[in-house]
Amino acid sequence: MKRYLDPPENEWAALTIRPSSESKDIDARVRKIIDDVRTNGDKAVIDYTKRFDNADLTSLRVPDVEIMASPKMVSRELKDAIELARETIGKFHASQVITETATETAPGVKCWRKNVPVEKVGLYIPGGTAPLFSTVLMLGIPAVTAGCKRIIVCTPPDSTGSANPVILYTCSILGINEIYLAGGAQAIAAMAFGTESIPAVYKIFGPGNRYVTVAKQMVSLENIAIDLPAGPSEVAVIADETADPEFIAADLISQAEHGPDSQVLLVCSDQGLIEKVQKELHRQLADLPRRELAEQSLQKSRIIHLNSREEIIELVNEYAPEHLIIMCRDYGDAGIQVKNAGSVFMGPFTPESAGDYASGTNHTLPAGGYARVYSGLGLKDFQKRISFQEISEKGLKNLGPAIIAMAREEKLEGHGRAVEIRLSKITDNIG
Amino acid sequence: MKRYLDPPENEWAALTIRPSSESKDIDARVRKIIDDVRTNGDKAVIDYTKRFDNADLTSLRVPDVEIMASPKMVSRELKDAIELARETIGKFHASQVITETATETAPGVKCWRKNVPVEKVGLYIPGGTAPLFSTVLMLGIPAVTAGCKRIIVCTPPDSTGSANPVILYTCSILGINEIYLAGGAQAIAAMAFGTESIPAVYKIFGPGNRYVTVAKQMVSLENIAIDLPAGPSEVAVIADETADPEFIAADLISQAEHGPDSQVLLVCSDQGLIEKVQKELHRQLADLPRRELAEQSLQKSRIIHLNSREEIIELVNEYAPEHLIIMCRDYGDAGIQVKNAGSVFMGPFTPESAGDYASGTNHTLPAGGYARVYSGLGLKDFQKRISFQEISEKGLKNLGPAIIAMAREEKLEGHGRAVEIRLSKITDNIG
Repeated sequence: MKRYLDPPENEWAALTIRPSSESKDIDARVRKIIDDVRTNGDKAVIDYTKRFDNADLTSLRVPDVEIMASPKMVSRELKDAIELARETIGKFHASQVITETATETAPGVKCWRKNVPVEKVGLYIPGGTAPLFSTVLMLGIPAVTAGCKRIIVCTPPDSTGSANPVILYTCSILGINEIYLAGGAQAIAAMAFGTESIPAVYKIFGPGNRYVTVAKQMVSLENIAIDLPAGPSEVAVIADETADPEFIAADLISQAEHGPDSQVLLVCSDQGLIEKVQKELHRQLADLPRRELAEQSLQKSRIIHLNSREEIIELVNEYAPEHLIIMCRDYGDAGIQVKNAGSVFMGPFTPESAGDYASGTNHTLPAGGYARVYSGLGLKDFQKRISFQEISEKGLKNLGPAIIAMAREEKLEGHGRAVEIRLSKITDNIG
Repeated sequence: MKRYLDPPENEWAALTIRPSSESKDIDARVRKIIDDVRTNGDKAVIDYTKRFDNADLTSLRVPDVEIMASPKMVSRELKDAIELARETIGKFHASQVITETATETAPGVKCWRKNVPVEKVGLYIPGGTAPLFSTVLMLGIPAVTAGCKRIIVCTPPDSTGSANPVILYTCSILGINEIYLAGGAQAIAAMAFGTESIPAVYKIFGPGNRYVTVAKQMVSLENIAIDLPAGPSEVAVIADETADPEFIAADLISQAEHGPDSQVLLVCSDQGLIEKVQKELHRQLADLPRRELAEQSLQKSRIIHLNSREEIIELVNEYAPEHLIIMCRDYGDAGIQVKNAGSVFMGPFTPESAGDYASGTNHTLPAGGYARVYSGLGLKDFQKRISFQEISEKGLKNLGPAIIAMAREEKLEGHGRAVEIRLSKITDNIG
């Protein structure tokens, strides 16, 4: 990691730049896959699965019997872990259920909103060597809690044509049994436009490689909603002299092991700590299975020393990290000053990996600076809000003249007349 | 309007198709404008303003003195109307302020979310012959209520180089005084990437023509958030034999006058009503200032008769209208069954134009079927939600084994170790 000692504020922008990951080169390839799936349906999905996943499929849907067999493939220990995560994630997302009450905005004028589930949602779950069954929980739990009527999952098969059993098991405990064997851009296209087997959905959720990301962006321009713009994962750590360098190094590594385009940033007010963290990084990397990936990521990462708490918070808000770990004496106070971040981990015993799996918060978060404007996933992303208004005769007498005056000024005479024709039929003794 | 008597369900999809508005032909032109503004900043904006708005500008920002002079240009009647609308819209959006409480998802594990304003937002307000000052209220009020720190407005000048005074006045009463003279795709590009005069913002809101819509879509792929995908405005009306045909005709016309690509849909259970509505349409159109536009829109629109309430609701949910007016005996009951709509107008004295101006709900709504998955604008669109978690030593002892088991299964050993290293330092007498 490169070190920066008390950089002046005009250098901060450069220090908070993410490693670039241009996607222009794959746009044309993704466009071709999307068009192909749109035109040729199942056949195209099956062809691409042969090509990219090396699997021969005759049908795309995972048979019920395979889902029912999945519990046998999962250890007791892992089942217990998944169950615990299901409970915490379930509790936190259930706490997001909101019933809004009506507001009388003027006498006789009542307005309210209703949260209604998005009827059809598609969850994309990456497969491969590290199947993300935790993402099944993070997407499936809010979808089920919101009451989405049709929840489908797409996940790529292994070369024998099977889905990962832990993914199947996790779906099954949430009651999700409509699972399709499809990965990459072809899965996104199938969920966006539908094929003979895979139904079109209204909104697509889930992480993936650059093909998946670009495909989601492309279909989002054509009537399909997507969860969040995606970017490589990242963490910022705020630390002072009270922080444990072993914890810091472990957190930095746990982020860096995601891959070479991940980024970590340590911002601290204690120079002595920097030495200790770097020593610890060296020690802890030694026997890490994904050492090579983590080292590549750390090479592009930064340690920044700043003297004041104010500067540290300001720089972090400018960076807008996906994950922010705060390990300093008064972490509660620092947390209150955070304005731009996806998810914040407070205090020494709250590692970022807790949020990835089991604290209860969602791990689908805005990276790449998107935390300035986007939120992590929550219940509301599986709902939409319909507004309602009900106006009484008295209410329309109150509002009517204002509506007519404004409509005329905007040259929309018909808008005013829809009010006038009603006012003409309201008897005088009302209101 | 074309009539359809009891169409079978397999014909509904065709009956709920929107008039198409292909935008492929303007993509290249918008791309050029965006690239030009990105490269040449103010100069490009000034050049395009000369070309498209026929105005010679030397600077882009509206001077404070012009804003301060605007009240003199607005009639007392219109000021009162705007003030009333400001109150109702203000009340309804203030009712959307939420403070979430923390949830203990497991012993020693506390999770919560905080709503934080998006720091910099840009509001686009169309100008031209019908300046949409009402949109200043609909975008500005939630932005101010959310606490957005920097709120800028872009609006095109008239040929003398001035902004519309009612737009300036409406901005001024909301405390918005950073207003720039820029319209169309050049305004969107300026707010997305910044120029010498116009600051880059994080999120762009507001309606506009197809150039604006395409520009918003394009910049949304490059780190900038936008409010909603846009489409031509539309209304569906549900009516039974108790509905007043004069009211229905007035509502259909008030939607149709927006322009030839607007669409209206009347779904009713009473055949006699259809005759009466058509007669009323004819009568009310006679002296409408925007008669020609309304007639073009009505030609593409439909009246559908269906026998049962269930079928009517089902068809409307399939259509997913931006605006839905319910004028039938038990409109409250029907409203409860609505699953897909932007904003719903309940009962005989709730015309759609009330929601456009002064009932309190937002008039920025999902059209073109987007109501299946998107919501109308609300306070939350000017905020993002940051999630927080704080885990005690005891909490980590509880969760730790689950996190480690799940991380290992996902081949992320470093994630597990960030927990293990902490567990190793927790003394046994805790928890």
